[in-house]
Amino acid sequence: MSRFRSSRFARLNAYVPGEQPRERRYIKLNTNESPYPPSPAVLEAAARAAGTLRLYCDPTALRLREAAARVYGVEPEAVLPVNGSDEILNFAFMAFCDERVGVAYPETSYGFYPVLADFHGVKKAEIPLKSDFSVDFHDYLGLRSTVVIANPNAPTGMALAISQIEEIVRANRDRAVVIDEAYVDFGAESAIPLTKKYDNLLVTRTFSKSHSLAGARLGFGIGDPALIADLTAVKDSTNPYNVNAMTQAAGVAAFMDNGYYMDNCRRVAETRDRTAAQLRALGFDLTDSLANFLFIHHPSVGGAALYEQLRERGILVRHFSKPGIEDYNRVTVGSPEEMAALVEAVKEILEAGR
Amino acid sequence: MSRFRSSRFARLNAYVPGEQPRERRYIKLNTNESPYPPSPAVLEAAARAAGTLRLYCDPTALRLREAAARVYGVEPEAVLPVNGSDEILNFAFMAFCDERVGVAYPETSYGFYPVLADFHGVKKAEIPLKSDFSVDFHDYLGLRSTVVIANPNAPTGMALAISQIEEIVRANRDRAVVIDEAYVDFGAESAIPLTKKYDNLLVTRTFSKSHSLAGARLGFGIGDPALIADLTAVKDSTNPYNVNAMTQAAGVAAFMDNGYYMDNCRRVAETRDRTAAQLRALGFDLTDSLANFLFIHHPSVGGAALYEQLRERGILVRHFSKPGIEDYNRVTVGSPEEMAALVEAVKEILEAGR
Repeated sequence: MSRFRSSRFARLNAYVPGEQPRERRYIKLNTNESPYPPSPAVLEAAARAAGTLRLYCDPTALRLREAAARVYGVEPEAVLPVNGSDEILNFAFMAFCDERVGVAYPETSYGFYPVLADFHGVKKAEIPLKSDFSVDFHDYLGLRSTVVIANPNAPTGMALAISQIEEIVRANRDRAVVIDEAYVDFGAESAIPLTKKYDNLLVTRTFSKSHSLAGARLGFGIGDPALIADLTAVKDSTNPYNVNAMTQAAGVAAFMDNGYYMDNCRRVAETRDRTAAQLRALGFDLTDSLANFLFIHHPSVGGAALYEQLRERGILVRHFSKPGIEDYNRVTVGSPEEMAALVEAVKEILEAGR
Repeated sequence: MSRFRSSRFARLNAYVPGEQPRERRYIKLNTNESPYPPSPAVLEAAARAAGTLRLYCDPTALRLREAAARVYGVEPEAVLPVNGSDEILNFAFMAFCDERVGVAYPETSYGFYPVLADFHGVKKAEIPLKSDFSVDFHDYLGLRSTVVIANPNAPTGMALAISQIEEIVRANRDRAVVIDEAYVDFGAESAIPLTKKYDNLLVTRTFSKSHSLAGARLGFGIGDPALIADLTAVKDSTNPYNVNAMTQAAGVAAFMDNGYYMDNCRRVAETRDRTAAQLRALGFDLTDSLANFLFIHHPSVGGAALYEQLRERGILVRHFSKPGIEDYNRVTVGSPEEMAALVEAVKEILEAGR
């Protein structure tokens, strides 16, 4: 820390991203990437856009907003493309929280929410999950805070029903409600249609998981045009050209190939459910995940120990040392072959532990 | 504006970027892009990186920091790559300014500084230029604020000597001094070597102009590792994966081809000086620009009128309606052919005005 750091940020707790090891080839099941590559049209579009890099990209990302609008069934003015969905979350914390309006979110959820709250000096209400790890929507009715809920939630993968989301949005009409749909394409129902009915609902999306574009950094905010205008003003006040030309082009092409990605999501969901059944048969406890990861625990192996032993066998999963979930690991759903290797590895670990 | 907008940002004045018209083909001399394309190796690197988009990019951008470190003659820990240099400016305002420590910068300079100051609620001291449009370095000695100076300055193109920059840095040892070197490669001297001597100096760079990568969004902060650690903490608290994989790869390749870009910068400087002489011969007043643009005014044509008449002739330049410079236009130095077309067009406009 330098001598010059602002008093506002004296105690920063930056988010620690999942490992991206370069030194060894792992079966990488730790950061919820897709096992399937982007479609050829996306690679072509990105490469073609590289030929235009001399010029600034469109700061309004018009073509990308139009493509998103067609797929999401909203107006282009209801969409803000961002440099990864972390950026839209950051914008939302800036736009809709302050010293007066705090934020409420599930105590166990995406670890970036508390980082953003602390960074922006926003008072946070961290609402415990129920004992089965589910979010109780009753806890979020009539709060005086901005509400942020990942649906499906991470790292549990459990989802609220859309009627429960609507209850939350309806019961907080004077506050923004942010539904983080990073994982929605793997089986949960989207709240995007509700954005046309409720002006306080912001849905956030990422192309990192469902659309195989983690390295391109592309996310979206979708909501009432007035809400989106606020977030766009934050963008234009901090980084007007936030999404580069190659990523804009890749995003347009990905929307045109949306069927390919939705097929991939279905394949991931099938692999998830098959793997879940295999792990349950081996004695694992699992949440009912609708996301592209499993949240697993075995009565005879500690969470940290399982993480380490999988790592030794060349398989990387995500362990959180957070109290309450330290016995669990979050395992990204990879290809069928990768998941078969995972199941074999845990069998070995369980055998060795006898 | 929505009903949910934070009281902090009730009065937002977002930056208005230069036009990026799509409806007609202009000779585009309005946003200081390079007239020369990126080197073939950059396009290849970006296209190759597109093949890795399924995976997250390296949030520490290690290879890019190493490449930057080699070219800039500093350690990799002294470099933070960012999603365009607007992002590093935003980070610096967040990290080094607050309700106690304000910011001082030249009254006529990059229009994004007041946007950032207002957005973050930072008290701003806007220090007038001298009557010849130059920055008087004496005005920046012993301030109690964070100092931000574009060198060369925009839209004048005029530069301080490096000894004057050093005076400013030395006279503000308890405050961060930000030298925005967006245009330095076109003829001014860089302050990067001073970052090894002074822990309060942050130099910012962009690849948008000198390295033909405006559409890729790539900038850098260079400074003492403690200063860079602060800015990295801001990044990790707001958008950890800020530079996408294609842009990281393009940046590494561009550093490897740095000679090509420095040659381009010299060609631009030659075109600039030749065009300046031609415009002076036509009766224009010009500042002594060391940047890749000219700041021009003619006694017989108003600034807005010249802008409009050039636009009608298919040439786009940048006019600022700001008092004090409203008689001027900022003209990007394009290719020799583009500048010949500009000179012909202004000749016509002057003839018609007789």
